[in-house]
Amino acid sequence: MKDLTLDNMTDAVINSIAGTQDQRLKDVLTIVIRKMHEAAIEAKITHAEWEGLMNFLMATGDISDAQRNEFILLSDLTGLTSLIDLLGSANAPEASERSVLGPFYVPNAPMLEPGGDLIKDNDGDRVIALGQVRSTTGEAIPGALLEFWQNAANGLYSNVDPSQDDNNLRCRMMSADDGSYSLSTIRPIAYEVPDDGPGGDYMRATGRHCWRPAHLHVRVHAEGYEDLVTEVFNTLDKYIEEDATFGVRSTLAIPFNRKPSPDEQARFSHVAAPFRMVDFDFVLQPLG
Amino acid sequence: MKDLTLDNMTDAVINSIAGTQDQRLKDVLTIVIRKMHEAAIEAKITHAEWEGLMNFLMATGDISDAQRNEFILLSDLTGLTSLIDLLGSANAPEASERSVLGPFYVPNAPMLEPGGDLIKDNDGDRVIALGQVRSTTGEAIPGALLEFWQNAANGLYSNVDPSQDDNNLRCRMMSADDGSYSLSTIRPIAYEVPDDGPGGDYMRATGRHCWRPAHLHVRVHAEGYEDLVTEVFNTLDKYIEEDATFGVRSTLAIPFNRKPSPDEQARFSHVAAPFRMVDFDFVLQPLG
Repeated sequence: MKDLTLDNMTDAVINSIAGTQDQRLKDVLTIVIRKMHEAAIEAKITHAEWEGLMNFLMATGDISDAQRNEFILLSDLTGLTSLIDLLGSANAPEASERSVLGPFYVPNAPMLEPGGDLIKDNDGDRVIALGQVRSTTGEAIPGALLEFWQNAANGLYSNVDPSQDDNNLRCRMMSADDGSYSLSTIRPIAYEVPDDGPGGDYMRATGRHCWRPAHLHVRVHAEGYEDLVTEVFNTLDKYIEEDATFGVRSTLAIPFNRKPSPDEQARFSHVAAPFRMVDFDFVLQPLG
Repeated sequence: MKDLTLDNMTDAVINSIAGTQDQRLKDVLTIVIRKMHEAAIEAKITHAEWEGLMNFLMATGDISDAQRNEFILLSDLTGLTSLIDLLGSANAPEASERSVLGPFYVPNAPMLEPGGDLIKDNDGDRVIALGQVRSTTGEAIPGALLEFWQNAANGLYSNVDPSQDDNNLRCRMMSADDGSYSLSTIRPIAYEVPDDGPGGDYMRATGRHCWRPAHLHVRVHAEGYEDLVTEVFNTLDKYIEEDATFGVRSTLAIPFNRKPSPDEQARFSHVAAPFRMVDFDFVLQPLG
């Protein structure tokens, strides 16, 4: 251990964790340590650059709080989150694809009845989101817990905008007996991820913009199925091909402007016309 | 960009930073992004594991403050810091080897005259540290700024121990005309790195102890030379072969117990006997 060199340091560190009880943790750490060391050696990181990295991580912690996790934002902006989502989707190729959780999720939003309203006093284009929760094996899934969250007409989410009520444009909803869900809301809009912290520093340094195309966040939980965290994107958005967080998938992108049928006009007559329809089914992977 | 897959995501992210103005930053990010993605794919990181990582990083930020950088501690415990030091030393093979800065460095400690005293009212075994600052080309370097810091008899550094005076067992010193330096201090002792945060969680999960062998921290700055950050270790310490931060090098380890010569007894007669000698020369790499 007194004779560690560039050639044996990585093995020494991996040997040092030989006592890890949790085999999965041991396997993951072995890979992560090896790749981290490989990166440092290949890039020939200097001490000054390492100090810069330590300061960058400190700044990331400093700007984070219960309402804001800047580490998640950095994971999103460097494609790590989307890679994790793709790995998850690869295990369930017939289920709905996953997409980024993002930094704006808040648990325990109020429950809303199927068909309920999120618009309240929000400005914006009215839409009805609707569809079904079902299994990859085809059957409807009643009693699935859907969580929806999205931004307001000013582009901001309620948890980072003091001008909005808590839980504005957020809800939880149980799917109906036929697995269906629906709610009236406003059409989400494109927005820039927060650029006043290390995430913004990264984007400026790499010559990137911070825009994300308009999307509705959804998290679906049902007994006996893999949890699904995903987003539904509006293909009509100008940023649909250049999401700052690499979250768009063809299977998750639809035009947020289908005209309602006469039946739907009648069914949703409690929503002030005009409104458009956003159709999306969530397909879940059975556990095990 | 709507058709990103496990096969093309990494290239998409690397393409996204094509506008990076700073070529060095671009090169480093390209390597780091690629290795980070490779690690995620090879380890097949799940969404739940990723959320665990994000929470771990948040906890690391939460416990850090101006006096404590837990990111540096994690870098130390996973051998990243020592790897950076080895990379630096590889560029200057005739200079003194580098070793970990650690989380206890505080800039702008009080200046001490050559031969000055750090012991004051500290308990511990008295030692005189002494030696020379010189160039890899052999000549003495006068006017080099040496910074020393070490732990007290309770194992703690002054910046994390409210019971110690600010700057206890810390100083800065200019090397004399012949490049020499000397100071009286106490023999540093082995200690455990802080284990009450994510660094401690990592060590417990991996079955490791948190001990570091006794050492004196030194930072040397001289005009026209590469900065040197290093440590001098006591080979008599029981943890000399199992430093929690992988910082020990054979070239940096000496017994902290040489008996003073009669000349030295006289020269340091202002220090209460008995005391032992710790000899170490710092060899700096000329810039460029």
